[in-house]
Amino acid sequence: MTRKPATRLYVEEDLTAGGVVGLSPEHAHFLRSVLRLEPGRTVALFNGRDGEWLALIDGIGKGWASLSLEEQTRPQAAGPDVWLYFAPIKRARLDFLVQKATELGAARIQPVVTQRTIVERIKADRLRSNVMEAAEQSERLDLPEIGEAGKLDRVLSDHPEHRPMLVCAEAGEALPMADAVQALPADRGCTILIGPEGGFTPDELRFLANHPAVRFVGLGPRILRAETAALSALSLWQALAGDGAHRPPHRADA
Amino acid sequence: MTRKPATRLYVEEDLTAGGVVGLSPEHAHFLRSVLRLEPGRTVALFNGRDGEWLALIDGIGKGWASLSLEEQTRPQAAGPDVWLYFAPIKRARLDFLVQKATELGAARIQPVVTQRTIVERIKADRLRSNVMEAAEQSERLDLPEIGEAGKLDRVLSDHPEHRPMLVCAEAGEALPMADAVQALPADRGCTILIGPEGGFTPDELRFLANHPAVRFVGLGPRILRAETAALSALSLWQALAGDGAHRPPHRADA
Repeated sequence: MTRKPATRLYVEEDLTAGGVVGLSPEHAHFLRSVLRLEPGRTVALFNGRDGEWLALIDGIGKGWASLSLEEQTRPQAAGPDVWLYFAPIKRARLDFLVQKATELGAARIQPVVTQRTIVERIKADRLRSNVMEAAEQSERLDLPEIGEAGKLDRVLSDHPEHRPMLVCAEAGEALPMADAVQALPADRGCTILIGPEGGFTPDELRFLANHPAVRFVGLGPRILRAETAALSALSLWQALAGDGAHRPPHRADA
Repeated sequence: MTRKPATRLYVEEDLTAGGVVGLSPEHAHFLRSVLRLEPGRTVALFNGRDGEWLALIDGIGKGWASLSLEEQTRPQAAGPDVWLYFAPIKRARLDFLVQKATELGAARIQPVVTQRTIVERIKADRLRSNVMEAAEQSERLDLPEIGEAGKLDRVLSDHPEHRPMLVCAEAGEALPMADAVQALPADRGCTILIGPEGGFTPDELRFLANHPAVRFVGLGPRILRAETAALSALSLWQALAGDGAHRPPHRADA
């Protein structure tokens, strides 16, 4: 079993053999005051480009830490190509949705404003800190890209025309999500769109139905909250078209 | 499209044609002070035995409400036979897990105390109120049964010997969850066990491996928080062996 440090941190700096990396004040505070790590201890670093590295704490003080890179422990690898588009929901549940979508390997997260969307304002820095923490904890090698919130018609017109978009719908005709995922063309990626809790308006549904990439999908007979629907749909896509058959690295026999 | 009231309440009383039902003080307060419903308005009632009923508010006051049953709008039906066993986690995430497991149709929810379980005390009334609210909102016709928290060895020895138990494991050999679900015998139900975030101990893993019902399953390469693992596993089971192909009742064309 590869020995690895329990703590993983996302950094923006390049990671290369022999390099030295400084941490943000927040990360330095976390290592020093929460975990009480001292010089000589190791953490894992990743930046979404250069894989995962073992890093040795050379010095640490109030609001700063300097680490030297020891060795690459995992090479960078592309994650599964699934995007989550969602109508924003209220704060605690939005935090949750974004954290869980990151854990479940979404490559891109995009808030979409619909006619029945209640929450208008999204704090980008809050989305980003949720995404960063969840990526650190889940051991993924990158952060999901966060798309700027936009109205449904704009988001749809910007969406790649040939990239399938599975739109979760409680009403009307829909394929079971598992069937829809299994019928997707291989290697073309997929976007999952979760509507607002009031549902799409009839106008929006007609607009969606006319988009060549859209297929309506169902998630069973129970009414799911938006964040539950997002997690269910992502879980199914990963299991049936993504990397659900892979095992966590760094974890041989317990 | 069947017209139905937006509000659904779980009650314990029998529901029969011509019956009159009184609400709990909490439900009465909710209808009167939060929703501001007056006599003559309708709500939907269910009790886990008698289907769903349309009920007319006859009278409502501070802490009481009296309703008369108008007609049954859905007959009782058995839900999918999937149980969730989980090592308890801290409060906000436990609330979340229990709500989401209810939305995703778990028939039974059972806390299991393992050697690395950090949270010892589970408030049964808090579990129950989370379950009740999620059942009301998700439009299911019953509440999940809540098992009393017990130690892993006791819970396993009480578990029906021939009921498959899928144990989610981050380390060691495991079948992909989707493959394991598709290989389950039909019509025998299934239990999903989510371990504590520190993982099972080697002793516990040996003990589990010796249980005839246990199969270890994996949920992909990322490390999932306990509540995410529970929701992923339940979603996959519902989609591949449960009622994932069914559509919500009461929702024809939008």
